[in-house]
Amino acid sequence: MKDVAVIGVGMTKFGELWTKSIKDIFVEAALKAIEDARVDHIDSMYVGCMSSGLFVGQEHLGAVMADYLGVSPIPSTRVESACASGGMAFRQAYFEVASGNSEIVLAGGVEKMTDGADVTEALATAADQDYEVYQGVTFPGLYAMIANAHMYQYKTTRKQLAAVPVKNHKNGFNNPNAQFRSEISIDKVLSSTLVADPIRLLDCSPVSDGGAAVILCSLDIAKKFTKHPIIIKASTQASDTIALHSRKSLTTLNSVSKAAEKAYKIAGITPKQIDFAEVHDCFSIAEIVVSEDLGFFEKGGGGPAAEQGLTALEGGQIPINTSGGLKSKGHPVGATGIAQVIECYEQLTGQAGKRQVKNAKIGMTQNMGGSGASCVINILEAL
Amino acid sequence: MKDVAVIGVGMTKFGELWTKSIKDIFVEAALKAIEDARVDHIDSMYVGCMSSGLFVGQEHLGAVMADYLGVSPIPSTRVESACASGGMAFRQAYFEVASGNSEIVLAGGVEKMTDGADVTEALATAADQDYEVYQGVTFPGLYAMIANAHMYQYKTTRKQLAAVPVKNHKNGFNNPNAQFRSEISIDKVLSSTLVADPIRLLDCSPVSDGGAAVILCSLDIAKKFTKHPIIIKASTQASDTIALHSRKSLTTLNSVSKAAEKAYKIAGITPKQIDFAEVHDCFSIAEIVVSEDLGFFEKGGGGPAAEQGLTALEGGQIPINTSGGLKSKGHPVGATGIAQVIECYEQLTGQAGKRQVKNAKIGMTQNMGGSGASCVINILEAL
Repeated sequence: MKDVAVIGVGMTKFGELWTKSIKDIFVEAALKAIEDARVDHIDSMYVGCMSSGLFVGQEHLGAVMADYLGVSPIPSTRVESACASGGMAFRQAYFEVASGNSEIVLAGGVEKMTDGADVTEALATAADQDYEVYQGVTFPGLYAMIANAHMYQYKTTRKQLAAVPVKNHKNGFNNPNAQFRSEISIDKVLSSTLVADPIRLLDCSPVSDGGAAVILCSLDIAKKFTKHPIIIKASTQASDTIALHSRKSLTTLNSVSKAAEKAYKIAGITPKQIDFAEVHDCFSIAEIVVSEDLGFFEKGGGGPAAEQGLTALEGGQIPINTSGGLKSKGHPVGATGIAQVIECYEQLTGQAGKRQVKNAKIGMTQNMGGSGASCVINILEAL
Repeated sequence: MKDVAVIGVGMTKFGELWTKSIKDIFVEAALKAIEDARVDHIDSMYVGCMSSGLFVGQEHLGAVMADYLGVSPIPSTRVESACASGGMAFRQAYFEVASGNSEIVLAGGVEKMTDGADVTEALATAADQDYEVYQGVTFPGLYAMIANAHMYQYKTTRKQLAAVPVKNHKNGFNNPNAQFRSEISIDKVLSSTLVADPIRLLDCSPVSDGGAAVILCSLDIAKKFTKHPIIIKASTQASDTIALHSRKSLTTLNSVSKAAEKAYKIAGITPKQIDFAEVHDCFSIAEIVVSEDLGFFEKGGGGPAAEQGLTALEGGQIPINTSGGLKSKGHPVGATGIAQVIECYEQLTGQAGKRQVKNAKIGMTQNMGGSGASCVINILEAL
């Protein structure tokens, strides 16, 4: 496989973008990425999107976006894996460049969630329709089961869960593209509306519109475009059962641990060598479980680690979600996996401003779909 | 890029499969392909599907199908490009093997269209929502505009259009997996219900359920599994404007001609060297235009060619849609591109029975989305 690099990134602000269509949003992000990478063309593109059919009545999104971006007749492919759609689009772009078929490929992600569709119902299509959704459970309920099991098994406390969104809002305060740039307190999380016990409103990532895009190319030609290409050391993916009830354990996300294991092996590193990570904090408990399954902390150690500031930007052992994460930055589901790569890129190229992790050399992204039935992990490194 | 081969195939019968869920259908096809290829595992899989969200309320189809097939935690990715979803899933699987990342990959496609959703509305999401669908036009209307333009520009006759479904039903009669195994006459087509002038009911591919899957592997190891691996000589893709009104011409499908041009170049052959082709006859006019844009006939020659039997199985210069095509075999949109590869495989391995093209050495598949805003072309060759 050829070595592949990221050479430019672009994203919209995440939030309620009522004056912009899904096309506007994707095109804005893609143009920014193309401009940032200073490429004069792209050979091919990928669009990660979960459910434009249900959200805005538009499928065939690869062709739609190539057309509105003005790059037809290049190949353009839409990839879907619920909230991991962006990460998976990135990985497909990676394969296309690694295979030698194309030199410069755009990987983007987009979601337009605030146009009036029933968001809870649309998101629930990421769970098992027959055995979960039809029985009445939606995502806050599924993650509540994971949280309850984790609290029972590892004595994780409600306050430890709250430490996650408090940290992520603190980080997001310094991200100009974040949806919620406001700090919150533990007390505010604990007194927010109960959604699905023990999950409260401020444990939940929001409903968002947004787009994100990055440009990949073979490492051979990357130096033509930038002094600071970021190498993709590993891009891995794994799956798990779609329904929670089929799993041996509720407190381990098998797709995360499997994809991580493979990623560390391919990159030839251990979790300790990761300087920072963007992980999929769709709910507070998700970040805690994922921080364990990525090997940053032992099982049961995720809650105490969050509470003790081990994942904080300042003085943390492994800063997690310096971008603000899904919670503060926003979670336009198809764009999230790409936005994670963008934060990684900005950190590794020293462009993260007040969010900058000192001496950041190796970063990780972890993006997952549903209650972890799919997961994509990337390890990126500064040259 | 590594050479990649197809080593096994499997599909369900296409039709109204009311007793089977989308999961049942995909798994049946995938298991048949795995058994046919005699592989003891797969490294990764792809699921082509257009709109399971709108048809059956289930997204996240990669993970769902890996789970129900019993192959988690392998990576599983859903690809969407409207009616070209299957072809595009195949091409992504091809990249993954060609890159060297994986050795054995399953590419499948599925659609479950008869479960009660508004099919016309769901399919219309493949067109431009803002500028086509909102104005009231759906796919028969869009292809009717293409047909009228072709009839005006090239004197193509209504009877020439009818020759396409008559031929395809004749071929499908001998395909045990076809939805409609009944011969029809020119008169029957011409007297069938008018749908969108000049398109009549028997010009339209049907609403279908169905699944199809193939196994790809690197050519290096293909001989371990079969004496007759089929090599992928080229797999190309192109896009065009999503809306018809943005095109310079209504009578040329730019994505088809661009993808074909690239495919011939990569394979190092000319259209004359193709022994047979499976093309996307969603409507009669589509097969005629595509047969021209693939270079089998000059522009305007598609209608007369169909009428004169030049695309017939018996005595045709280039047999087209020996499987029965979308019209007779059925068109479960996400499965179609894979089913085309299956027909190619069966022809090239001499397993097509009464549909067998004599001395078939090189076959082509052409699969497109919407009114041709996306197109995937494969050239396959017997070793």
